[in-house]
Amino acid sequence: MTDDSTARLATRARELDAEHVSTDRRNAFVLPDGVVYLDGNSLGALSVAAREATRDAVERQWGEQLIRAWNDSEWWTAPERVGNRIAELVGAPAGTVVVGDSTTVSLYKAVHAAARMRPERRVVLTDPDSFPTDVHVTRGVCEQLGLTLELVSPGDAVARLEGSDDVALASYSQVDYRTGELWDLATITAAAHDAGALSCWDLCHSAGVVEVGLTAGGADFAVGCGYKYLSGGPGAPAFVFVAPEHLADFTNPILGWNGHATPFAMSPDHVAADGITRARVGTPPVLGIAALEGALTAYDGLDVGDVRRRSLSLTAFFVECLGGLGVDLPVVTPADDARRGSQVSLRHPDAYAVVQALIARGVIGDFREPDIVRLGFAPLYLSHEDVLAAAVLLRDVLDGREFERAEFATRAAVT
Amino acid sequence: MTDDSTARLATRARELDAEHVSTDRRNAFVLPDGVVYLDGNSLGALSVAAREATRDAVERQWGEQLIRAWNDSEWWTAPERVGNRIAELVGAPAGTVVVGDSTTVSLYKAVHAAARMRPERRVVLTDPDSFPTDVHVTRGVCEQLGLTLELVSPGDAVARLEGSDDVALASYSQVDYRTGELWDLATITAAAHDAGALSCWDLCHSAGVVEVGLTAGGADFAVGCGYKYLSGGPGAPAFVFVAPEHLADFTNPILGWNGHATPFAMSPDHVAADGITRARVGTPPVLGIAALEGALTAYDGLDVGDVRRRSLSLTAFFVECLGGLGVDLPVVTPADDARRGSQVSLRHPDAYAVVQALIARGVIGDFREPDIVRLGFAPLYLSHEDVLAAAVLLRDVLDGREFERAEFATRAAVT
Repeated sequence: MTDDSTARLATRARELDAEHVSTDRRNAFVLPDGVVYLDGNSLGALSVAAREATRDAVERQWGEQLIRAWNDSEWWTAPERVGNRIAELVGAPAGTVVVGDSTTVSLYKAVHAAARMRPERRVVLTDPDSFPTDVHVTRGVCEQLGLTLELVSPGDAVARLEGSDDVALASYSQVDYRTGELWDLATITAAAHDAGALSCWDLCHSAGVVEVGLTAGGADFAVGCGYKYLSGGPGAPAFVFVAPEHLADFTNPILGWNGHATPFAMSPDHVAADGITRARVGTPPVLGIAALEGALTAYDGLDVGDVRRRSLSLTAFFVECLGGLGVDLPVVTPADDARRGSQVSLRHPDAYAVVQALIARGVIGDFREPDIVRLGFAPLYLSHEDVLAAAVLLRDVLDGREFERAEFATRAAVT
Repeated sequence: MTDDSTARLATRARELDAEHVSTDRRNAFVLPDGVVYLDGNSLGALSVAAREATRDAVERQWGEQLIRAWNDSEWWTAPERVGNRIAELVGAPAGTVVVGDSTTVSLYKAVHAAARMRPERRVVLTDPDSFPTDVHVTRGVCEQLGLTLELVSPGDAVARLEGSDDVALASYSQVDYRTGELWDLATITAAAHDAGALSCWDLCHSAGVVEVGLTAGGADFAVGCGYKYLSGGPGAPAFVFVAPEHLADFTNPILGWNGHATPFAMSPDHVAADGITRARVGTPPVLGIAALEGALTAYDGLDVGDVRRRSLSLTAFFVECLGGLGVDLPVVTPADDARRGSQVSLRHPDAYAVVQALIARGVIGDFREPDIVRLGFAPLYLSHEDVLAAAVLLRDVLDGREFERAEFATRAAVT
């Protein structure tokens, strides 16, 4: 029966790959042989363009142009230039997105500035199940500003906001990093606005794979990661979005020379730059931005809607494969397309060891506490055939109880 | 006469280069032909090791190891590992320095945390002539914490501190970015301590070229730049130092998962990590750290005292060359070795155009408002022969009034 199922699924995989051929960018990426990489939601794969952009930034721009590269290679304006490219991917207008600091620092800037725009209100909402840095940084801002942090699941946010007048800011992730659940940005934002509050969205697990729709959804602020689906490289600069209507009132809590109206006048008085530039702080991380800018060329000529359709097809097909192959782990991620990001999370009591055993078989995913096998589907470089291969190897790992081997039990320092 | 002078100076240059041969690391760096690079205090030159480290981080670690590199290439612990290497250069013990964010963000963390350690005191001192980002970020912290920013020159800081009881923090640069003046870290720090205040030092223009002496001078906090004399690459991660006695009380204003005691437990409660790790915030900029770590190998086997002696010899010889060649521009930088960093700043009414004309002749320095020709002497890759060549070209630019050419008058976007 299994052989029949596999053959049937293989045919289906080829059909689906043919159907989605226009969004196949596998050749733009460098992936080791024998690997199905299902961790592009943690560290996106290296692309040829990112590799070449970094090499050029180091060897020609830094090495030969030296200080002149700030002008000659337009390093100074790279944060806005790359920000504009990301803006297109997340449904925001030009001039509203800038790259530079880490995601956490970016979130600090956005949450701090947002909360101060509603000074008469004392509550900030965030998700207790957010990626922890979101909770930490928001808690820290609340302590500094004398506000109350209220942990409310995004599923309960609309009810909490309805009829309320105490919330300054609702700060949520569009896609849950652990379960892969996609939350309704427009509905939660509308509820925040109806209650006189602002919204801030963490797009770490949605930028590049979901039709984020910042403008369409009315989002006030957003941040996102450069190194997950955008494949900008390890620790790539994050981005911050400020809606056009808030730019004039945006007060960066970290006042630096890069956010100054006239940075080279070297004046000790701070005058915030116009527009999104005021969200900049220090000298931009040029090498990281170069890699990210190169990586983003993988989206050239692609419609995010088509990428999203490919992503949904890949994740749905993976679940279909699990069913067809008789793998009966609980699927944590919603089956409903409208509620699913670009990942499939499975539950297993030995999830850590299962992930290690899968890695030994060439299927790289990751483990998340307490019992989640988390598999991310970066649509640009994964095919339906890859997805089937991963499902078959997962079946083998489970059927052969490979995860019970002692070598897979020891936790690495970074999991 | 000039030919005689030049010949005499050339002999002297060769003698000095022979005397300082043990600190010559020119072959470790990649510099374009025909360039004397006197801007290593703005963007340090590319080294072979930085180039190779970045290439390895991109192509092998990211490209092949992918997510496994966090363990296999020890990315996770790189901020502390590279911090420890910098600690050696600035006279600090292991476990007190970490790299990661930009200089401005690092200063925000240090100044914010320091000011909160003296809650009963309402004044923060800083230098009105600091690099502006220092003033901006400190002013922002003061506004947030309800403190008073008092702009006091480092030359007046001891008098201001004496007998006072209102100062929480004295925050100064060890070397003035514009004039190159070296301030006395130990004396100002002692005055701060006598007045019950803390000190924070910006080492951007001293790390790697001055015997900084953080521990010897009793400094409480410090930050510094990775991309100037340390040659870590454009926008390289900065570093932050917290003295051992303050680590337990250091409260990072930006609470992120990288500063958490158990980041992978994914707990929404924030428990600060022990030691300097609590000064971390978000995911580290791995590519930037790789370049910086490579660059720092240029210091392997070198004593900072010897590097300092070479630096002083280079800057003193440059001034000697100006005298010998009849260049009579006012020298802004102190002649006294004890008060001079690793640069020589000259005053000229057409300073911007002079710098442009020098660049056209292959001598790369920079301009600083309002009338400063700023020349930095990165000791590891500059020789006394380079210094003489630069002085000769400066004389030619001035004697030939080359700076009056129209093409040198137009300001570039980034100056």
